[in-house]
Amino acid sequence: MAVKSTTLDNGMTVLTHAMPHLESAALGIWVKSGSRWETLSEHGISHLLEHMAFKGTTTRSARDIAEQIEHVGGELNAATSIEHTGYFARVLKDDVSLATDILSDIMRNAVFDATELAREQRVIIQEIGAAHDDPQDQVFDLFQEALFPDQSIGRPILGTVESVQSFDADQIRAYMDRNYVGKRMVLAASGHVDHDELVDISAERFGDLKSEGDAEPVPAKFVGGDRRQQSDHEQAHIILGMEGRAYNSDGFYAAQILASILGGGMSSRLFQEVRERRGLCYSVYAFHWAFADSGVFGVSAATGADDVAELVPVILEELRNAADTITEDEVIRVRNQIRAGLLMSLESPSSRAGQLARQQILWGRPISLAETTERINRIDAARVKKIAHEIFEAGPPAVAGIGPVKGLPAYDSIVKHFRP
Amino acid sequence: MAVKSTTLDNGMTVLTHAMPHLESAALGIWVKSGSRWETLSEHGISHLLEHMAFKGTTTRSARDIAEQIEHVGGELNAATSIEHTGYFARVLKDDVSLATDILSDIMRNAVFDATELAREQRVIIQEIGAAHDDPQDQVFDLFQEALFPDQSIGRPILGTVESVQSFDADQIRAYMDRNYVGKRMVLAASGHVDHDELVDISAERFGDLKSEGDAEPVPAKFVGGDRRQQSDHEQAHIILGMEGRAYNSDGFYAAQILASILGGGMSSRLFQEVRERRGLCYSVYAFHWAFADSGVFGVSAATGADDVAELVPVILEELRNAADTITEDEVIRVRNQIRAGLLMSLESPSSRAGQLARQQILWGRPISLAETTERINRIDAARVKKIAHEIFEAGPPAVAGIGPVKGLPAYDSIVKHFRP
Repeated sequence: MAVKSTTLDNGMTVLTHAMPHLESAALGIWVKSGSRWETLSEHGISHLLEHMAFKGTTTRSARDIAEQIEHVGGELNAATSIEHTGYFARVLKDDVSLATDILSDIMRNAVFDATELAREQRVIIQEIGAAHDDPQDQVFDLFQEALFPDQSIGRPILGTVESVQSFDADQIRAYMDRNYVGKRMVLAASGHVDHDELVDISAERFGDLKSEGDAEPVPAKFVGGDRRQQSDHEQAHIILGMEGRAYNSDGFYAAQILASILGGGMSSRLFQEVRERRGLCYSVYAFHWAFADSGVFGVSAATGADDVAELVPVILEELRNAADTITEDEVIRVRNQIRAGLLMSLESPSSRAGQLARQQILWGRPISLAETTERINRIDAARVKKIAHEIFEAGPPAVAGIGPVKGLPAYDSIVKHFRP
Repeated sequence: MAVKSTTLDNGMTVLTHAMPHLESAALGIWVKSGSRWETLSEHGISHLLEHMAFKGTTTRSARDIAEQIEHVGGELNAATSIEHTGYFARVLKDDVSLATDILSDIMRNAVFDATELAREQRVIIQEIGAAHDDPQDQVFDLFQEALFPDQSIGRPILGTVESVQSFDADQIRAYMDRNYVGKRMVLAASGHVDHDELVDISAERFGDLKSEGDAEPVPAKFVGGDRRQQSDHEQAHIILGMEGRAYNSDGFYAAQILASILGGGMSSRLFQEVRERRGLCYSVYAFHWAFADSGVFGVSAATGADDVAELVPVILEELRNAADTITEDEVIRVRNQIRAGLLMSLESPSSRAGQLARQQILWGRPISLAETTERINRIDAARVKKIAHEIFEAGPPAVAGIGPVKGLPAYDSIVKHFRP
């Protein structure tokens, strides 16, 4: 594989996968920093910082940033999650230097001007309002809080209207100074790119960053619990969750495969039983989120008021049943899906750059297709059944529901279902 | 370019863009048929048919279809719009034959079993419920109805609970027989694919389809008007619209460029004025939809109750102002964006297959990058200003709003704003 990796003196990594036959490139800078590193009084500051990076530097106004990249037909974007924040660009091959220059500039020289900050706080308050209007967003916020109450990992990434309004430039700089540090940063690029050039510009622009910042966040404590909001939506939007597996843990791949078998595609058990055989939902799926020290196994579904009472017991029964009956055929199907997905990512510059950055942040190095395949091939049906028992029987689950949720079974009866 | 095109005796086209260096492929069958071809009593049947195609054929159950494609790590999907319906697959190179076989099977041999139909009607009713819970979906339904009232082109693609429940297998077959015909079908594929093989299988599976079906739908009549629904959402979700340009009309490219200059990216006028300078919205954008004989130019935005009164006049002023002040620089920026987007599509099998199919349906042949570039380069600022005047001053606009819309200016005052 054409992957090259260089570590700067301060620990920042530059990773490239050159695809010289392409006319375009994707690149980005990912930071191992997100809402988990926020103190209570910083709730929402990771996301606000991500917005403010685009609002002007010492040499570029917000409009300059937008016009310079779009003038060459390129795109800039960014995203904040619980454990990382990424800033990325998609450009034609001749514009890689420009994109790298702009990305470096917004990450090193943003000025956090007070007028711009006040305006951007308004924008984020509008973003929070839009999220509140979407019951799918709302139920995920409730869910996260039920999983990890009173912890930064359990709070909405956007912050609250009050917290977002409270920040000033000094607080943003202080957060950035503690968290945007060499050892926690990766520049990853794929497509028509030159490794040495990207190393040079990274050394020049990021070489003076200190190496280390905040310690790892306090360990996540999975709690579980029940959060319901009766509202006049047409559908009850429901999520059930249990503690999953950290990405460095022994059970990570088994938990990922379990989620796919249960609800990862049209042939998954939940899709077949809940949608195809019973017609209860349009959307039903299972997921597994992994964090550095914890994880979440979840099932999301939505259905009309009359069907809520039927839906949840059916899902619970599918989970319990899966723990005893998963077959080698199902495991092989999911292995093939993962492998095909990885092969297709290798052919897309954006997917590939994001994947490299994620691997570097999660495992400290890029992981080859052969190595991932080998890790996955070690998981058999017995291993998946074992992790299913462990996950489903571990303790009180999280239940979140919004909409006509009166028919949702009592939390106690859901808890009981998970007892071995 | 490596594009090959073959027309079968019945008019069906097979289009491929081979990328033999890839490990994967994307392919699909697109039909020039969608909600516009529905009679009033067929409202929603295009979308129901698209769902029912996956519910079993003479030789495969719904579960067989899902398991066979996912067993090899592939994916199947489908989408229904106003003027077309597409069924597509994404697979590794060795599985192109399997994917073609399954796609052909579901499009020629679906059985529309009564029990499966009853279940799928329930699923779509859940889908309708979920759409009603999302104010962004809801406001677009209102908008479409204001644009084209009492016409199939103005009705929601999903249908209504009542219409979806009313269909039986005979109605689905009758609709399909009239609309899934050779001259209105395209098989398009990109990635690691072999043109001759795809021509052979298409001839074998689709060669006996008749050539022609329903006549073109009745011409669209843009009406405009006002649709507001006061509700307790946090944000007012608003769309303004005027008549745009058909894809075969003289003004098509100018209208596309106008939409991008006004609201196509971070450097667009609406983003800069409404979000960056005033902090009024998180999301604000302009769009141009083209149909065979009409089009829609629109602006979508959402904001809190207190800001609605300010938002709409600002947008109107930006539109009016644009018609007189668009610069060559702005046109060049958008040309570059379109060209970069096209180049990037050429590197993605899924984007490329969809693009080829769309071009065949819209213009009757694939259009090369050079030809599109040449068409776009003919558009200058004068042309864009001219179309802006024509579009904005043509007649009563459509206004749709959901949420706290009391502060939204009266329809009459919006209409007046558009008078020259």
